[in-house]
Amino acid sequence: MAPSLAAGVIDTPKILAFDIFGTVVDWYGSIVREVSALRLPVDPGQFAIAWRAGYRPAMARVRSGELGWTKIDDLHRLILDDILEKLGPRDLDEPARRHLNLVWHRLDPWPDAVEGLQRLKRRFTICTLSNGNLGLLANVSKRAGLPWDLILSAEVFRHYKPDPEAYLGVCDVFDVEPAQMMLVAAHQDDLDAARRCGCRSAYVERRYEFGPTLPKDVSRNAANDFHATDLIDLAGQLGC
Amino acid sequence: MAPSLAAGVIDTPKILAFDIFGTVVDWYGSIVREVSALRLPVDPGQFAIAWRAGYRPAMARVRSGELGWTKIDDLHRLILDDILEKLGPRDLDEPARRHLNLVWHRLDPWPDAVEGLQRLKRRFTICTLSNGNLGLLANVSKRAGLPWDLILSAEVFRHYKPDPEAYLGVCDVFDVEPAQMMLVAAHQDDLDAARRCGCRSAYVERRYEFGPTLPKDVSRNAANDFHATDLIDLAGQLGC
Repeated sequence: MAPSLAAGVIDTPKILAFDIFGTVVDWYGSIVREVSALRLPVDPGQFAIAWRAGYRPAMARVRSGELGWTKIDDLHRLILDDILEKLGPRDLDEPARRHLNLVWHRLDPWPDAVEGLQRLKRRFTICTLSNGNLGLLANVSKRAGLPWDLILSAEVFRHYKPDPEAYLGVCDVFDVEPAQMMLVAAHQDDLDAARRCGCRSAYVERRYEFGPTLPKDVSRNAANDFHATDLIDLAGQLGC
Repeated sequence: MAPSLAAGVIDTPKILAFDIFGTVVDWYGSIVREVSALRLPVDPGQFAIAWRAGYRPAMARVRSGELGWTKIDDLHRLILDDILEKLGPRDLDEPARRHLNLVWHRLDPWPDAVEGLQRLKRRFTICTLSNGNLGLLANVSKRAGLPWDLILSAEVFRHYKPDPEAYLGVCDVFDVEPAQMMLVAAHQDDLDAARRCGCRSAYVERRYEFGPTLPKDVSRNAANDFHATDLIDLAGQLGC
């Protein structure tokens, strides 16, 4: 925790913007759950990891301009078709592909997420800042009971994180200085990009984001303003 | 009420999109309240009406392309400066103007709004579709406890209502057909524009939107799918 912030020497942030996939919701466990229930002839964990692994390269094609603006729903579908070709089952029909692609609208929250957000919401304005599209984020949040004050997405700014337009877009929406916005995320590169824009950063440990057999390095990075084990811990550190 | 919709012969909508100013929140009463509390040497009701009257002409300048994209916060400020020039007080200082301009972030809901929306939310996805900017809508909603599933704004689509891009933008966000979206508003021209896009429409009576001395004509228009006295009545008609 940055002592100056904790001690109230400088203003605490007004806006907390949350990364979603992996930070607030458990994409790995949710995809494993649905793929297992469908009894597809694949390893559910391998399938989940492969789907997520296609995400950054797909966004990179949009960020570079190779693809025009493309929603995550459509990028997820491109990746899904690719991994069904590679891992199977190749003969999965169109309605089943459409339904499976929308698993990203049915992701479960981490167990601490709803309580943590409810507490943080008492003192801060809480919003999403996700590369997920607005419809996806609304559906996930309605199903999970995530109490956002505002759902913001790369879709609003037409720039995927880590483009600076995404972080600065949040500040513009709320008419605040970058230092009054804090990004909350389980990924150091996302937090690094927010800090480069002048925003604050809070890291959340999600050791098992990639499943129980691939624990992440969740060690502390002193560059972040806060380091929390989960969102309830973050609420406590922020006096909520 | 359109019998086919009420009888369930055709699908009921999935998405309810709400106009905000006048439909969900009472801009007239809220502005009168703040202007009165400030003891400005003006007639509070006349001041509120003048401010709102500048709204459509200001948006028309954006819709025509004369002005580039300009947020409602900034349009409200242009109008405020103009009416302070005309109605006074001309010497209101900059911090006071900034504070007064944000009265639009502190609008009170109509008494039925929170309960009506809570009930409608059980069965439908409820979102805003307002010309108000995202930050304004988030602040109003947080203060008033309006339980949106998603806050959408002309700001997302870079088109003010009644441009069709605004209504069709909501359908695109949720990946639904226009007939699966219903606009809820207290203004027939807004509802007319939604129906021209293929969306459904529900009229809400707000007889005293312009204050107690200027009651509106709230007579029924058979072109709308629903006609409700308030949002609790609408919830009842929709089986919520």
